[in-house]
Amino acid sequence: MDDTGVHLQTIEPLRLGVERRLAELSPADGAEPQALSAAARYALLAPGKRFRPMLTLLAARDFGAPEGAAMDVGCALEMVHAASLILDDLPSMDDASLRRGRPTTHKVYGEAVAILAAVGLLNRAFGVIAAESRLPASVRADLAVGLSATVGFEGLVAGQARDIAHREQVRAVDAIDLLNHQKTGVLIMAAAQSGALIAGAPASRLKGVAEFARRVGLAFQIRDDLLDAEGGEAGKDAGKDAAMTTLVSALGPEGARAAMREHLDIADAALADAGCLDGLMSQYVRGLFFARAAAA
Amino acid sequence: MDDTGVHLQTIEPLRLGVERRLAELSPADGAEPQALSAAARYALLAPGKRFRPMLTLLAARDFGAPEGAAMDVGCALEMVHAASLILDDLPSMDDASLRRGRPTTHKVYGEAVAILAAVGLLNRAFGVIAAESRLPASVRADLAVGLSATVGFEGLVAGQARDIAHREQVRAVDAIDLLNHQKTGVLIMAAAQSGALIAGAPASRLKGVAEFARRVGLAFQIRDDLLDAEGGEAGKDAGKDAAMTTLVSALGPEGARAAMREHLDIADAALADAGCLDGLMSQYVRGLFFARAAAA
Repeated sequence: MDDTGVHLQTIEPLRLGVERRLAELSPADGAEPQALSAAARYALLAPGKRFRPMLTLLAARDFGAPEGAAMDVGCALEMVHAASLILDDLPSMDDASLRRGRPTTHKVYGEAVAILAAVGLLNRAFGVIAAESRLPASVRADLAVGLSATVGFEGLVAGQARDIAHREQVRAVDAIDLLNHQKTGVLIMAAAQSGALIAGAPASRLKGVAEFARRVGLAFQIRDDLLDAEGGEAGKDAGKDAAMTTLVSALGPEGARAAMREHLDIADAALADAGCLDGLMSQYVRGLFFARAAAA
Repeated sequence: MDDTGVHLQTIEPLRLGVERRLAELSPADGAEPQALSAAARYALLAPGKRFRPMLTLLAARDFGAPEGAAMDVGCALEMVHAASLILDDLPSMDDASLRRGRPTTHKVYGEAVAILAAVGLLNRAFGVIAAESRLPASVRADLAVGLSATVGFEGLVAGQARDIAHREQVRAVDAIDLLNHQKTGVLIMAAAQSGALIAGAPASRLKGVAEFARRVGLAFQIRDDLLDAEGGEAGKDAGKDAAMTTLVSALGPEGARAAMREHLDIADAALADAGCLDGLMSQYVRGLFFARAAAA
């Protein structure tokens, strides 16, 4: 299969559509209070691969939904992602100065405005989902319930709290997997599942999509840890995670790479079980990992 | 009318019901990660009058709704309120050390956990509303859209951003009114309107309820500013707002008190126009202001 071809013909136009829609759904340029709207736009419209909205769009397409509603729901999940990055970077959390090659949001707009922008983006995500009139109200409500569980006291927020607690402590592989799952996996699962849910996929298939996304999320986190350990990703503070245990420090680079490959294989098998063989979503994910490996 | 009687017989049992339900809807005591669940419980279950859920419950009752669904929606709005207080108190914002007579959340649990607890509470509010199965899905979606507008880039979040920007600057009365409205009024309006919406009140009545609540919110903020100027409210850092302009500094204490009374009169007139004459909600609000005045 020609991943490059898939990317050029289908993926990139979709990604550009996400960029356009994100800009439309952001607070207007110059809206009062100006620091707040500027900070929200800065964080949300920063260059990115838009992985989460792409998963939503591609899952929706793979399971037969029209594109419109999935676009806004995907953009809502990107808002949640942007909010989580603002918060992760704060002085009281990771204290990061660079993100995606640019100064972090609080470095540019100050801590208070950065926090408010993050809260505003998370809040807007729920508003966008609840207002998506192309979806039945019951689907909107289900998506909002799912997003709340994804973000909440057993999801992203819990993952971040776990991450900052006992950071110096050596962690077992199981504990690292739970942390990785809560910190990034849950939102990736929500992205793919939301697309399938919008398409009306039955519960049995949603389970397979969730497992696909969970494995992709774990693989993704290992990839990030590998890049961080090697200082290989441009535009991020390198070696930031050196003091804490990651799968790379627990298993070594080779062991981590093997674990990553295993997650991706199981991911594809789960998607095939869900009746989605060689769908766009799977090709897209393989393309992302493949492109990175080729470039490295 | 006997406000004390209304309070003892109807109001206090309702308030106790709110307390019980808030505890049930909180992260469980001791849930992992423990600092996070403890911080969320500390902020949400701190002693309070539960003004916002009470407005939701009483508006629902005044407009004829059964109690159950209004209870959870009201509790969701209290979660939003608690989240906003955690954020307001942060070192990068008001830098407050006391709230409701106790150390502020970040003083006890640290800044990172306090921020995560606030985000978790806001997020849970949407989850509770979207999952309220006693309401039709369309009403749940409408409530979530309304809450998002209330909190967002033109609501509470904007109000807080305005408040921290140019704090030393002398403000005109109109600018102060806008700030007060965005900082506290919008959530009070959402509380009363949500109750009426749950009861199926038509749009024409919702408008009157909104105006009632908007005026009550403005009166409430003036009362807070008066108490702050006089150092009269126990358990808050007194004189915290001294550096910035409030209606008390702009109009003087007497002028501010007159403005407060005028807001309350207009509030009652708006509610009467909405066909809700001497309802429980109005009696409750008058009782709150009356009790405070008598105690002062």
